[in-house]
Amino acid sequence: MPHENGKKTGRRPGDSGSKQAITEAARRGFGRLGYDKTTIRAVAEEAGVDPALVLYFFGSKEELFAASITWPFDPSRELPAVIEGGASDAGRRLARLFVKTWDAEEGRNTIVALLRAAMSQERAERQLRTFLETEILGPLVTGLGCDEPELRAGLVAAQLLGLGITRHVLKLEPLASLDAEQVVELVGPALQRSLSHPLPLARR
Amino acid sequence: MPHENGKKTGRRPGDSGSKQAITEAARRGFGRLGYDKTTIRAVAEEAGVDPALVLYFFGSKEELFAASITWPFDPSRELPAVIEGGASDAGRRLARLFVKTWDAEEGRNTIVALLRAAMSQERAERQLRTFLETEILGPLVTGLGCDEPELRAGLVAAQLLGLGITRHVLKLEPLASLDAEQVVELVGPALQRSLSHPLPLARR
Repeated sequence: MPHENGKKTGRRPGDSGSKQAITEAARRGFGRLGYDKTTIRAVAEEAGVDPALVLYFFGSKEELFAASITWPFDPSRELPAVIEGGASDAGRRLARLFVKTWDAEEGRNTIVALLRAAMSQERAERQLRTFLETEILGPLVTGLGCDEPELRAGLVAAQLLGLGITRHVLKLEPLASLDAEQVVELVGPALQRSLSHPLPLARR
Repeated sequence: MPHENGKKTGRRPGDSGSKQAITEAARRGFGRLGYDKTTIRAVAEEAGVDPALVLYFFGSKEELFAASITWPFDPSRELPAVIEGGASDAGRRLARLFVKTWDAEEGRNTIVALLRAAMSQERAERQLRTFLETEILGPLVTGLGCDEPELRAGLVAAQLLGLGITRHVLKLEPLASLDAEQVVELVGPALQRSLSHPLPLARR
């Protein structure tokens, strides 16, 4: 799962238009219908190409998903600002990064597509877990110098993913309709606790 | 979505064995494969009946899902104990109820099936939202006498669903392997804050 700037180059210069059209049609399809209901055939049709060309470029639906659905922000560009402000207020900055991204329509569609795929398809689940661990959570808790970094990373992931599902999939009100800064004020302090407060856990 | 004790009666006495077999096959199929990949045909085959009998009893895959996948505990039986202990320690008791349920294999399969279906199918999403709001979250925040009950319900839902996804779908370690009481100690205080601490939110 590359981030949004992770582009692959086409195999031949002349291919790039079709490949781009396929990628965009796939992104819309996966975002709207989910992994299982999005077919190579439908993506090809929306992109105005032959299904065989989709397979020529991407090999399989799994590969197409992996190449077309990208995390809606570039962690290597966005995380330093979360980390550099220091550990004592990182929760609010982390909340803001996720909430603002997901409140933008494209970011919301992407996270829903990623979660949907992760719940129905093992490869997408592994891909999302690895991406979260190595690109977002790992650098975050390491950069902030957290003790028990993996456990804190898991708690942070639970809070952020739960928030995304509650606001953008289940759409529980009033949480779903709050604006971004209100949500940041609500969940920022809870994220802060997961990042820096003593953990009440007697670890084995 | 009935809870586990919500049984429907068969149309004729002689049907109950087949209907029960279909329901159990459907529960296994939805839990293992998710909503989209579970077919009427496969459920019928596993139950040892004709697909037409599945449709005769349930009408559609949507109806079959709604009737076979049940919330893994009966809220009207379990929530009073969470509420009656009083608001000041309800977070830990609520965490225990969910964590223990989801740690049992059947409870885990059920929540994964419900979340999977909610992410791929609008009716399942509405069904899960309505069930959470009216059967679990509403009675909980009302019973505890919370201010801003709907908003607190949303925060609690985000925490619990995020925890379930992180532990049972993405399986982030070490969170996924902690035993139930360790998880209760970790997330109970955070749930407590969502239930009873002042909300830092200037509501419009």
